[in-house]
Parts: sequence; structure tokens; C-alpha cells
Amino acid sequence: MKVAIFGAGRIGKVHAASIKMDPRSELVAVTDVMTEAAEALAKEHGIAARSADDILRDASIDAILIASSTNTHADLISAGVMAGKAVFCEKPIDLDLARALEIRKIAEDHDKPIMMGFNRRFDPNFAQVKGALEGGEIGKPAMLSVTSYDPAPPPVSYIEVSGGLFRDMMIHDFDMCSFLFGMPDTVMAHGSCLINPEIGAAGDIDTAVVVLTYADGRIATIRNSRQAPYGYDQRVEVLGADGTLAAENEIENTVVKSTAAGVVSAKPVFFFLERYMRAYAIEWSAFVDAVIEGAPVPAGVQDGVNALALAEAADRSLAEGRPVAVTADMTGA
Amino acid sequence: MKVAIFGAGRIGKVHAASIKMDPRSELVAVTDVMTEAAEALAKEHGIAARSADDILRDASIDAILIASSTNTHADLISAGVMAGKAVFCEKPIDLDLARALEIRKIAEDHDKPIMMGFNRRFDPNFAQVKGALEGGEIGKPAMLSVTSYDPAPPPVSYIEVSGGLFRDMMIHDFDMCSFLFGMPDTVMAHGSCLINPEIGAAGDIDTAVVVLTYADGRIATIRNSRQAPYGYDQRVEVLGADGTLAAENEIENTVVKSTAAGVVSAKPVFFFLERYMRAYAIEWSAFVDAVIEGAPVPAGVQDGVNALALAEAADRSLAEGRPVAVTADMTGA
Amino acid sequence: MKVAIFGAGRIGKVHAASIKMDPRSELVAVTDVMTEAAEALAKEHGIAARSADDILRDASIDAILIASSTNTHADLISAGVMAGKAVFCEKPIDLDLARALEIRKIAEDHDKPIMMGFNRRFDPNFAQVKGALEGGEIGKPAMLSVTSYDPAPPPVSYIEVSGGLFRDMMIHDFDMCSFLFGMPDTVMAHGSCLINPEIGAAGDIDTAVVVLTYADGRIATIRNSRQAPYGYDQRVEVLGADGTLAAENEIENTVVKSTAAGVVSAKPVFFFLERYMRAYAIEWSAFVDAVIEGAPVPAGVQDGVNALALAEAADRSLAEGRPVAVTADMTGA
Amino acid sequence: MKVAIFGAGRIGKVHAASIKMDPRSELVAVTDVMTEAAEALAKEHGIAARSADDILRDASIDAILIASSTNTHADLISAGVMAGKAVFCEKPIDLDLARALEIRKIAEDHDKPIMMGFNRRFDPNFAQVKGALEGGEIGKPAMLSVTSYDPAPPPVSYIEVSGGLFRDMMIHDFDMCSFLFGMPDTVMAHGSCLINPEIGAAGDIDTAVVVLTYADGRIATIRNSRQAPYGYDQRVEVLGADGTLAAENEIENTVVKSTAAGVVSAKPVFFFLERYMRAYAIEWSAFVDAVIEGAPVPAGVQDGVNALALAEAADRSLAEGRPVAVTADMTGA
Repeated sequence: MKVAIFGAGRIGKVHAASIKMDPRSELVAVTDVMTEAAEALAKEHGIAARSADDILRDASIDAILIASSTNTHADLISAGVMAGKAVFCEKPIDLDLARALEIRKIAEDHDKPIMMGFNRRFDPNFAQVKGALEGGEIGKPAMLSVTSYDPAPPPVSYIEVSGGLFRDMMIHDFDMCSFLFGMPDTVMAHGSCLINPEIGAAGDIDTAVVVLTYADGRIATIRNSRQAPYGYDQRVEVLGADGTLAAENEIENTVVKSTAAGVVSAKPVFFFLERYMRAYAIEWSAFVDAVIEGAPVPAGVQDGVNALALAEAADRSLAEGRPVAVTADMTGA
Repeated sequence: MKVAIFGAGRIGKVHAASIKMDPRSELVAVTDVMTEAAEALAKEHGIAARSADDILRDASIDAILIASSTNTHADLISAGVMAGKAVFCEKPIDLDLARALEIRKIAEDHDKPIMMGFNRRFDPNFAQVKGALEGGEIGKPAMLSVTSYDPAPPPVSYIEVSGGLFRDMMIHDFDMCSFLFGMPDTVMAHGSCLINPEIGAAGDIDTAVVVLTYADGRIATIRNSRQAPYGYDQRVEVLGADGTLAAENEIENTVVKSTAAGVVSAKPVFFFLERYMRAYAIEWSAFVDAVIEGAPVPAGVQDGVNALALAEAADRSLAEGRPVAVTADMTGA
Repeated sequence: MKVAIFGAGRIGKVHAASIKMDPRSELVAVTDVMTEAAEALAKEHGIAARSADDILRDASIDAILIASSTNTHADLISAGVMAGKAVFCEKPIDLDLARALEIRKIAEDHDKPIMMGFNRRFDPNFAQVKGALEGGEIGKPAMLSVTSYDPAPPPVSYIEVSGGLFRDMMIHDFDMCSFLFGMPDTVMAHGSCLINPEIGAAGDIDTAVVVLTYADGRIATIRNSRQAPYGYDQRVEVLGADGTLAAENEIENTVVKSTAAGVVSAKPVFFFLERYMRAYAIEWSAFVDAVIEGAPVPAGVQDGVNALALAEAADRSLAEGRPVAVTADMTGA
Repeated sequence: MKVAIFGAGRIGKVHAASIKMDPRSELVAVTDVMTEAAEALAKEHGIAARSADDILRDASIDAILIASSTNTHADLISAGVMAGKAVFCEKPIDLDLARALEIRKIAEDHDKPIMMGFNRRFDPNFAQVKGALEGGEIGKPAMLSVTSYDPAPPPVSYIEVSGGLFRDMMIHDFDMCSFLFGMPDTVMAHGSCLINPEIGAAGDIDTAVVVLTYADGRIATIRNSRQAPYGYDQRVEVLGADGTLAAENEIENTVVKSTAAGVVSAKPVFFFLERYMRAYAIEWSAFVDAVIEGAPVPAGVQDGVNALALAEAADRSLAEGRPVAVTADMTGA
């Protein structure tokens, strides 16, 4: 299948490599508002940089991959749908839940796959947890804990347009909770600015704990920090009636050094590109499966809406200092 | 110094062994409403079982160790104070915060040490975390997470008189938070009954997440379950500006077996007697240090009141579904 | 640079993927005595299957990669040298040390890189050990231990033509010792047939311990087994004056499951393709560095001769039940 | 049962504590050529320091515990036997194998238990390996590896009278091999002096690898170093047809610190008193079981002879540079 990439930045390049690795997909075009970036990526793959309109009009292109800035996602999904193409879009659909719900409507009757790039669902460790949970290996689930720390905070300029920690960072963890536990009933958010006061000045937090409660009594906890100087800390732990499943960090290497100074092992792999490199490739193959073989989309528009609804509930909870119910009108479900 | 034990049950026996191991302390008497239990323990140590009054009147006895049932703690602390003795008392002071605050008053002018048995403060792993935190090894602290699961729930008959999960079980974790982070501003409790419906029928929960927030923005999370079939799961993790400190479980042995069926290592040590065996001995020596050498009491009546105040706040939060402020009138401070 | 592959089997395919991943190298031809295999691999990469002679005569081809059966290695290296091409050859040079020493002579004046495929030198874990050793992180080295177990023995038909455990399997570990400790003075081999009596009937062993001693007193130990049912067990440990460096196994995933049955973690990755996947790609890039940028060859013909000399010494030691000296005439050095 | 200790040094004190902990045994006397040491230990336990002869003549004393210097062991075992007492003796029986064989004769008809202090057999980790092996958990055993490093070398003055590394240090590891694998057929020793040249000048080595081979093809490897600056490194690993059992080190605490500088965990517990503290207590109880309840002695005189025979074979192997057979006349068996 022929694919065009919208957005030639860091994540666009990762996807370009995944497209190349799957023999069933071929990268045929790339576009970016930064013409130079588009041309560099195009050149690397021996293809042409083209305009967005040109790509959308090209009937030979089967699928578009949206890796451009967040504020373009909703319009591009919509345009992709209009053009009759399969769509793969990086999270989030939009920073605005109402707009995401509109996209949900638009997507409803589209007969081609639309997939959201919740890459962590494809991480072999988390997928193993999911499989073991569904296989009943720890019995009836009770508590879920998601630890998700970035190695270092982004520039404040990024924070300012990010939509805030819940929409920008924790959205992945909300999706992890949905992936493993489904949608909760209530969201209670706690947060503060402990790392960089400028983040606080920009109206955001950098440290947060969010608790989700489920109708049947299950409880999920998410911990986020914008700064873990030892690397990208990405763990998941589930307690069930029969035991615990814990997905630990992947580490840089397996060497352990023991000296009088202590026993030192390698740090977690640095950031999302390193940690989720395999996940990106598996994710892309899942999209190709959906487009070519009609396999179910493993993370669709509804999942994008759900994660955004939880972020919105967390924002409200933090502002009001109380648990917020997740209602049907927030998810369109 | 000469010591008498009140209460010859499981925990009384543990303390009797600790008293024997410290060459500075001598067990001279034991009392219990169950005469047979008192006599058995007395015989094992070659001493006499005596009445409580007799012990309290005996001027040669320097200290009493209260390991009897919870509802006797407050009265016995009070009686010990009246009798001019040093007092070591198992947690909690009482199930009722008002009564604990009275004891706090009574204790105020006592010139002998009164120490509460918050044994986990003396666990070498948690003590190492405390030391590293205070040594600035991970910089300014941001988040604390306490995991505390029992291997199996107690009988429902015990649950009924326990004061509930927050006062009976999480009280240790509240104290761990105080130990590492001090007293919080607010308490938000989530809980449910997932393990045994009879626990719910008795008005209690068996699964809980409590979030504590601190004036300076720090956040602590406690996870409790009455059932972790692989053993006693007791972990603490702190994220600071410069990194993370994690105290993992102690395990039964260090043997790892690798076969086609997987790589299997030993389970956590089974329950509190195994896990905290060393802590109990260290704890007792700290009390002897306080009595004989005037060392500061590492866990006093105020710590007992504080833990109870947090349990009370958690009960209220769970009942009302909102965060509850921890106020000065709750702690007497 | 343009590359042709000799041998379209399992390892040839791995190298084809590495060639594709390095943007500086291009796979242009493949040959195999099994025509179908050659054509299948050629088709997958959109190129032509050609005859060996045709490839050697094609002046546009810069390098050949020899991944054919062991008995063809020496002749093909020789032919590659005659044809003026850079040569990458899978280990070993030959099963016969005398033949390997001839190749060493032939290679001496070749002005293009000849590299032996000792892939483990490029494993990030072992490379980390090497770097730490050379960086003096554990002081003066004293003992090296190499553990190297296959998951399951190969068919006896393979054993019969393999050259025996020392030449076929332990040759990698001999090279690891050379890589980390240089060439030893003596070789003492112990071995037996414990897994499959048919291996013994074929004149080979399946279980072995070999000890290498060095002029300066250092000692290396290699343990080999043809069968470790939990996967490919590949570890290295070095003790120095200041401490120990240990490279542990890579595991399938990081999930740990704790239940009443025990604490189970994932097995080591299954076999060499999984474990050394990254090493193969790094290895290839090192060869491209040598060819294009004149970087030193990280594993040359002399390294191939050295490993073979150690295997020969081990064979003699096992036969004679005594330590065997490694002499200059065995290595041509 | 009433016990007297011969030797009030470091290890004597350890045993005194074990005797106190087992309610079935009572320490009633202590003797030492260093009168002050004897009196200090006696005072600590509220008993009398007495002469050796006095103790041996005292019919009320059931057992003697020999923790005096090595050169007194054989005579004291003999004297204990004559006096009709149960005997517990620290390893080794003697530095001289012929003398040990004499003791073996003397012990033959003694109807009271004589037990050798091979403490590592009682380490819960190694005992777990033994149990799993015997339970068939890894199938037919093939290879055993024992790693045994001291944290720091003893003074050269000690080395000079120690009997050498094989008799003084590796004797424990020889016994571990006997414990897990029985007696071997041949011993091949490699050794050198890498840590302190004065050890070499005193005629000893500080670094050694010894390989034991068994009649049925099994192979055991022992690695010894007098110096591992990170602590006491005591590990055992067994490969069987179905998998591997590995007993790892016990560590000082379970705290893991992750910062930009790396992931640091605690070192192994420092030395034998820390590592084998539990083993000493379990060992003592096993001796009491043998004396009081007639349980089999878990490590007898023959085990002491066997370990010494292996040390002697290793000495010869190192001197002669060849494998040495272990013959019946060396073990008296």
C-alpha cells in the first residue's frame, strides 16, 4: 500500500522508517509546512516532497500518516476521510474535546481504517501485561498503577501550546488505563509545579497524581513527572485477586558493575524513541493489517476521544479540587 | 533495665525475644487476661506471670511494653505514666482520635520515654531511604508512593473490631508518609470491597488508594490491599528532583530457577513477622537507648496521634467523596 | 558501496537486512548453490541472483559477504582477495588450522579490509564490558568467565560436519576471551557427552569447561552446553582488582508476574538471531566504516586464526588430558 | 544439653550466640589459651572461664564446640571423643590429610555425634539449591559453578600459617561441591598471585580456578579470589538437563537509587559473619538435633576428610600442572 506522510519532524521520521521496514507498505510522498524538512526526509527515501492538497488528490495513495503539529490533526483526519483514504494519526485528535467529538461523528461512516497513534499499546512489555490480564493469569483485576516520567521537561515555549500536562503527557497514560481497564467512572487529579516555576507561571503543572475509579470498584493510579534525570521511567503494575503483573523499564544494557562504590546497573533507555522503537514498528504493521487485511483497528477515534475526555475531567478535577464524573456526553458513547 | 510485657500473644512473643537479645534489657514479668498465654510465655523465659496491678506497683520495673488488644492501649499508657514507668506501646494509641488526644495531653509532662511501635521506621530498607532522602541523594522530594499489601485478609470477625482498613492496616503507611514526608494538608481516599463481600457487609473495604497532598506541592500515594497471594508486599518509592529511591521487597531466598517454564525467583517474605523481624529488634534497642541513654524517642505519642488523624481524615474522605483537610485540632499540634 | 552476498540461508538473510539498514551500503547481488534460495532472497530485495563467478568478475561490486557453508569460506576469501574486493566472512575461516594459516598469508598484502564475523564483539552488553575494562573501571583484570549455552542441540547430522564443539560453538567464546583478555598461554579442556548419546557416538561432546591461563597470571573460564531449555544463555563476567563487571542475558520482556506459585520473569531471548540482532547491524556498520572510511577492521583474519588455534589446542587438551601450550606456530604470529 | 566452647575468638562468639538462641542448648563453660578472651566471653554469658582439662573431665557437659586455632582441632576432637562427648568442630580437621585420616579412624566407633562446621550447607540459599536439585527441578545435573571471593585478603602473617588458599579458603567450596555433586574423580587447579606479591612470596596464591570432573561426566568449576572490594561474593550455579539453578548474593538492603549517575543497588553483605549469620544458627540447631534427637549429622568427619583430600589434590595439581586423580587412599573411603 502507498503512504504519504504529513509532517517531517522527529516522529515523522520514525514512522518513515517503520513504513520502510514493513514490506507491505511504501512511502511515496511527504509534506510539511517546513519545506526544507519535507525535502530532507523525501530525499533520504528517494521520493518527492509534495503539497498536502496534491497528496490528498492523488488517488494512487492509499493512506496518509499525520505526524504534523497537534492543531492540524483534526482538519487532516477530516480531509483524509473526505479523500477516501485510510488515516493514521498521532495523538491527540485535538486539544479540544468538542472538536474531537466532531471528528468522531465524521469518522463514523468512513469505511477505511482510522487509527490513533497510541504507541504504548504496542510496547511488547505492556502488550504482555494485557495478554496476561486477559488470560486470567492474575485473576480478577483490582488496582492498576501507571508510572510515567519524562527524563527532562520540554521548553516552556512548548508547554505553553501543549494543552497542559493532562492533554499532552498523561494522555498516553489515560489511554493505557483504557487499554488495560476500560473507561472509569470518576477522575480525581492532584498536581503541582515542583520542577520549574516557569511551567507554573505558564499555567501548567509538572508533577501529578490522578486516580481513576471504576464502577465495579477497581482503582487506577497514574503518576506523572516531567523530570526523572535517570531516563524515561515507564512502568505499569496491576494487582489482581491472584497476584501482580509488573512491566519494568527497559534498560540501556545488561552490564552490572560491582565495586566498593556500590553495584551499578544501566539506566532505563533514555526517551520515547529508544523505549518505543519496537512499538512504533509493531504499531505500523497493525495499521497495515487493518488497511490490507481488514483486521480490527487496535486504537481508533473513540480511543482518542476517550483519552481526551479523561484529560478534560482531570483538568476540571484539578481546578475544582474534587472528583469529576466521566459522563456519556464527554465520550459520545 | 527491667521490663514487663502486657499481652502474651504473637506480637508480645516477638518483643520478648527482642528484649532477650539486647543485653541491656531484662524481661522480668508478663501479664495477660488469658492466664494460660501469660504463663506459657513466662515459663519460656523462666520468669513469673503476674497481675497487671502487681506489675504497675512494682517499683523495680523500669518499663512496660504494651502488646495487648487495641482497646486497652490508652488505659495502659495512662496507667504506665501514673506509675512512673517508661512505656513502649504497640500502635494504635486507640481507635478513637479524641481518646488519643487525651493520651497526648497525659503524656505531655511525663519525664520517661513513651514510644509507639511503628516498627517499619526501623526496617533497614526504609531507614536507608530515609537516610538517603535526608542526605539529599535525590534532591528535593516530589512524590512518595507506598505499596502495602497483606498476603491474605484476616477473618471477618477481626475486621469487625479492627476499626477499619484505615485505622488497622493503612495506619502503618500513614506513619511511613509522616516518617518520610511529614504531615500532609489534605487526604483523599478511594476504596472498595473486591476481595471478600463479607468485608463489605461488615462495613469495611479491602482495597484502597489514598492520596496525601502537602503544602509545598509534594504528593504521596498509598496503595493497600488485604490480599496479595504471593506474600507481604511492602515497598516505598520516592521521586526527587535528581532521581528515585525505591525500597523493594525482601525475598525468601536468592535462588533463581530458569527452565522452559520461565525464570522463577523467590517470593517476598511471607508476612510482618518475617519481613520486620530485624526491625523489631532494632526498634527495641532504640527504646532502650531512649530509656537508658536519654536518646530521642524515634516514634512518640504525637506520631501515634498523627497517624490516627490521617486515618480519621481518610474515613471522612471516603464517606464524603472529597478531599479532607488535616487541621490542627485533629493532631493537637 | 555495492555488496554481493554469497549464501542465501538464515545468516545471509540477516546480513541482507543489515546491508539495507545502513544507508551507505547497497545489496546488488546474491548467489547460492541452492538456486531457489538465492532467487528468493534476491526477489525480496528487488535484485538479481547471479553466479559466483559473475559476481567476482563484476568490477562495480565493492565487497562480498561470505555466508555460505564453512567448507567454502577459505576458497571464497581467497577468491575475493584475488578479485580485489573487500571481504566480510562468517566465522570460521576453515575447520583446519593449517588452511586458516594459508589464508592468513594470502590476506597479508591485501589492501582492502577482510573482516571476520565475530558478531558478539558488537553486542552492546559485551562492548560495554570491553569499554569499562579498558577504561580501568574495575582495575587490573584477574579472572574472566564466559557462559555460553545454546537452547537446544543441533541435529546429529550437523554435529558430524561441524568440526566439533570447540570449532563450531566455543570458537565464539574463544574469540570473546581474545577480545577481552588477548591470547592465552595454555588451554585446558574438560568435556563430556551428557545431553544426547548420539553426539558422543559421533565423536563429539555437548558439555565443556575450558580454562585459559595467561602469561601474567590471569585466568579465563569458558562453560559451554548444547542445551539450556530456557533459552540462549550468553553471559560474561570479569573480576578485576577493584570489582566485577557482569553482562547478563537480555530477556524477552520486562514483565514480572508474582503469584502464589512464585515470582516469574521472562526468559532470555531465544537464540542468536534474537540476542545478536542489534550486534549484526552494528557489525555491518563497522565493516562499512572500514571499507569506506578506512577505519580499522575490528575483527580480522588474525582473530579468525587465533580462535581456531585455541579450538585446536582445546581438542588436543581434551584428547590428552593435560594443559596444552598455545605456540607461535599455531597462530602464525 | 550443656555445652562448652573451646576458643573465645570471633567465631566462638558467633557460636555462643547460636547456643543461646536454641532453647535446647545451654552454654556452661568457655576456655581459651588467651585467658582474657575466655573471661570476657564467659562474663558476657554469665558463666565461668575454665581450663580445657576441667571441661573435658566434667561429666555434666554433653558437648564441646571447638572454635580454637586450626592446629588444635585434631587433638581436641580426639580428646572430646575420649571424654565421651558430642563434638562440634570448626573446619578443617587439620591441615595435614594423614592426621585427618587418623581422626577419621578415631571417630569411627564414637557413639556421639561429631559434626564439622561446614556452615555454608546451612545457608538457606544453598540449601534451596540442594533441595531443588534433589527434587529433580532441573533434571539430570551437568555443570556446577561455585564463585567464592573474599572482600579483602587477610594479613600475610595469617596466609603463612593458613595452609594455603586451597586448605584455608577453597576448602569451603570443595565441601560445597561434595554437598551438591558428591566426590569427583579428578582435580585440576590453576592459580596465581595477582592481588598482593607478598602472598606469592609467602608461597601462596590469591586467585584460583579449580575444575573437578566426575565419573559420570559432570564438571564443577570453583573460582576463588582473596579480594572482591564490593563485598563477600558467594554464589552457586547448577546447570541441569532441564535448566539452571542460581543462588545469588544476599545484599545489604533492597534500596535502588536511580539518578543521572546510574542505577545503584546495595552491595552484597560484607563478609561471612553477615552472610552466614542465619546459617550458623541453623547449623547449631542441626547439631542439637543430632545430639538430642539422634538426627543424622549433616556434615561429619568424612566430609572434613573429603574436603581436605580435594585441597591436597589441588595443591598437587597446581604444583605439577596436570589433573590429579582423587583416590580411595586419600579419603579413607
